[in-house]
Amino acid sequence: MTRIAIYDTTLRDGSQGEGVNFSLQDKLLITARLDELGVDYVEGGYPLSNPKDTSFFRAVGDLPLKHARVAAFGMTRRRDIAAEDDQGMKALVAARTPVVTIVGKTWDMHVLEVLGVSLAENLRMIGDSIAFCRSHVPEVIYDAEHFFDGFRRNPDYALETIRAAADAGAAWIVLCDTNGGSLPEDVADAVDRVSREIPVPLGIHTHNDGELAVANALSAVRRGARQVQGTINGLGERCGNADLCSVVGNLALKYPGYEVLRPGQLVHLTEVSRFVYETANMNFRPGQPFVGTSAFAHKGGMHVHGVRKNASSYEHIEPETVGNERRVLVSELSGKSNIAEKLAEYGLEHDTSLLARVLDSVQDLENQGYQFEAAEASFVLLVDRLAGRRADWFELLRYNVSVSGKPGRDPLTEASIKLAVGDQVAHTVSEGDGPVNALDGALRKALEPHYPRLGEMSLVDYKVRVINARAGTAARVRVVIESRDGDDVWGTVGVSENVIKASWLALRDAFEYKLAKDSRPCRGGVTEVAADVAS
Amino acid sequence: MTRIAIYDTTLRDGSQGEGVNFSLQDKLLITARLDELGVDYVEGGYPLSNPKDTSFFRAVGDLPLKHARVAAFGMTRRRDIAAEDDQGMKALVAARTPVVTIVGKTWDMHVLEVLGVSLAENLRMIGDSIAFCRSHVPEVIYDAEHFFDGFRRNPDYALETIRAAADAGAAWIVLCDTNGGSLPEDVADAVDRVSREIPVPLGIHTHNDGELAVANALSAVRRGARQVQGTINGLGERCGNADLCSVVGNLALKYPGYEVLRPGQLVHLTEVSRFVYETANMNFRPGQPFVGTSAFAHKGGMHVHGVRKNASSYEHIEPETVGNERRVLVSELSGKSNIAEKLAEYGLEHDTSLLARVLDSVQDLENQGYQFEAAEASFVLLVDRLAGRRADWFELLRYNVSVSGKPGRDPLTEASIKLAVGDQVAHTVSEGDGPVNALDGALRKALEPHYPRLGEMSLVDYKVRVINARAGTAARVRVVIESRDGDDVWGTVGVSENVIKASWLALRDAFEYKLAKDSRPCRGGVTEVAADVAS
Repeated sequence: MTRIAIYDTTLRDGSQGEGVNFSLQDKLLITARLDELGVDYVEGGYPLSNPKDTSFFRAVGDLPLKHARVAAFGMTRRRDIAAEDDQGMKALVAARTPVVTIVGKTWDMHVLEVLGVSLAENLRMIGDSIAFCRSHVPEVIYDAEHFFDGFRRNPDYALETIRAAADAGAAWIVLCDTNGGSLPEDVADAVDRVSREIPVPLGIHTHNDGELAVANALSAVRRGARQVQGTINGLGERCGNADLCSVVGNLALKYPGYEVLRPGQLVHLTEVSRFVYETANMNFRPGQPFVGTSAFAHKGGMHVHGVRKNASSYEHIEPETVGNERRVLVSELSGKSNIAEKLAEYGLEHDTSLLARVLDSVQDLENQGYQFEAAEASFVLLVDRLAGRRADWFELLRYNVSVSGKPGRDPLTEASIKLAVGDQVAHTVSEGDGPVNALDGALRKALEPHYPRLGEMSLVDYKVRVINARAGTAARVRVVIESRDGDDVWGTVGVSENVIKASWLALRDAFEYKLAKDSRPCRGGVTEVAADVAS
Repeated sequence: MTRIAIYDTTLRDGSQGEGVNFSLQDKLLITARLDELGVDYVEGGYPLSNPKDTSFFRAVGDLPLKHARVAAFGMTRRRDIAAEDDQGMKALVAARTPVVTIVGKTWDMHVLEVLGVSLAENLRMIGDSIAFCRSHVPEVIYDAEHFFDGFRRNPDYALETIRAAADAGAAWIVLCDTNGGSLPEDVADAVDRVSREIPVPLGIHTHNDGELAVANALSAVRRGARQVQGTINGLGERCGNADLCSVVGNLALKYPGYEVLRPGQLVHLTEVSRFVYETANMNFRPGQPFVGTSAFAHKGGMHVHGVRKNASSYEHIEPETVGNERRVLVSELSGKSNIAEKLAEYGLEHDTSLLARVLDSVQDLENQGYQFEAAEASFVLLVDRLAGRRADWFELLRYNVSVSGKPGRDPLTEASIKLAVGDQVAHTVSEGDGPVNALDGALRKALEPHYPRLGEMSLVDYKVRVINARAGTAARVRVVIESRDGDDVWGTVGVSENVIKASWLALRDAFEYKLAKDSRPCRGGVTEVAADVAS
């Protein structure tokens, strides 16, 4: 088996995509998921470009990664300056990652016209930058920007640039189809030529402008490239980067000779894809190959009939191999096996009758627009409710939110809430910066006297998305709230036509989860509730 | 030049896609557009399958088509029956199209297990069906279902099936990758073998389950296929069919030896893509190659800088060749050059002083959390305000929103709004499914008596994002609203600590942009506001 290293650049090149924006917390969560999956390299960002990336590199060192190596990305040094005096170089080394990736110019037109330096100085910039990083960082990867375009126009110079990188100690030379317009046969020819001339392992980095990013990556691998760079869901500028979901799906399932990811992790591909969409607050692309919600959906009567008789009739792979599933007619995102797996993962005790009730309930909620990928705390609470294990921490009697605004002033926002807590009634009111903040304030006032540990908890993120965009503001909205305390971060979800009600539902689950979690004898297993907590 | 025939099956295979549904009128309009573009074949439907398709074939005969030939689609005759007695065959001939396309089984497993007939009877079904249609219809095309899967398992039988079609008089043999899982190298090998053995022109029909539909189509063409089947925008079951926009874009612009479409029509590709989305009432896919709204959008500062020096720096083709356009995204990464480009793109008149004020203002707003990349209408209004060109359509005096909820009931939501419109005061109130819906309702009540064309406009999407996730619900939120009327789709943005205020700001811009746009003398150029509009 030949291992193909997967280099994920969702957090760097992917974030160049229109509308893509990750918070620091998002980036750390995604890194952990990619590591779990068995991605070999996670490119975290561009240390010089913004303070968020700098904080990321500081924080990522504390993540207990099992497999992935984190890479910091930067450009070659500026012209006419020593590498050690260059801000960018210094920032790269200061990121203290095990891997640094440096991008440099291959295409003579770019060197002369865009960069405005001589062809010789560009070679020195490449060599110096790599040599400098090599003296501080164990593994330096060289990304040859516009390799295929440059190679087509001036193959000799293109080869000189990567020879400069190889000579200076680059561990990998990655050939980039930066403009995304190359054809698979051109990629194959170029990789052939380079592998004959350069004695360093090759990688491939493609973009999808010709809708050929995946084909181009596979074409390079067939000619000997051993690393593929891309992004989850193909996020990225313009038409995006090669979608790693498709790259990995094809390499793992269509080519018996290649090995990717950690063993047994391919079944989590769909989950990671959806997690990234949720985290980026983007809608799934239903028709996305391998992981899309429609990828194994059958509408045509003949196809449904065929699939029933023999699944391979109209399916190129078994959907379960990538954690996806077949759908016939109505949407059923979660199958029984997913749910069973999920229950096991959380150590939630269950019998077959509970499993069936959870499945029914999840399908029903998903039809209403719920999604539990980024809201597993709500899932855990749901299971507890269905199992009759839910403690009555509090019960809503009524809430009211009002906002009034005038031009040039902050609006006035007030929320009141009336709850039963045990046999007492709490009726509280709070102002806030906005309706959720005001509701949060009123809820704390009502509950903290009974449950002081709620003071440890805070809300860290709040996301709203319209589910059926067709109907505009009258459509349903899904609110996802991320909360944390000293130990954990958890997501909860609410769905309603009304954003305030959806927020309330997610907020209620956020508080309930904190209460449930603190009362569990051990983390992960929801068993019985300590009787003295609600006193 | 070798002509590659383009066979569009948007109206048949495309309509198998999840959520795709065309009315009879839609189908006729799309046929006319495809004809104008120079598509060679338009497959209109499946005469036996539903009455709409039957009506389509009746009506399409009256369209004055310039170039395209309309095809009716059907399966081979049923088992053990003469072709002339088969309902499907009769319906195909009755469609009176110049072309009939018949699909038949190639894969022995399908013949035996799914169809349940003998291998010999399947060959007779193919031959009889084609011979019967040939006796009534000038051109009969044979679609070999599951060709590549069948060929891999039992190449001899697969070849026998298409030989039966060729012997019976098929004008084309189209090799179908029905399950969409084949690899380009397998397609190339199979096409090589078939073209050596079968003396009939070949076509290729691919699906995108491995994200290789376009690559597979191109691979077949390079080995001698002369017809490509696909759909506009890649509509179709599961992951869709080969996107003809990408197939045509690549064939026309990357391969000098091939000719497609009518001369000079490639510039209408983007328009046809969007027309099909609009007609199908589907959202555009921004990152779609060649024709997507982000396909030539630049965000990274380095890329914007490069594109301005030389467009080929970061663009694989000139966007104008396919009727698309370059966009510079106004984002946190943007500098003065981006803003200047944006002003030019919108034909917004400006001098250096206005440019400087816009830049200051954008930077200030971006620091507050604004992002204009999905909200260019708000950017246009901002420039107009800074230039003193903003018309006073209406002025907010006050709004109030209240939501009250009880368990198990829909919350009650009410918004009131007080506006000055010219010298009148409008004070209106509305209920709604949620606060934005209620505000939208109250705003319409207040403004529609003055500006009736607001009735053309509706909200299509609403997104909320917390900007600085660290501070939880007390952080700022960014609301982006997407609106549309018959002609355009536009995005607006609002930022505040309060989601209701942020929604109000985005909603206000959405309405103002509609009013401003309708009063402009020409589309795209915001110049002066016609004085009589507000009367």
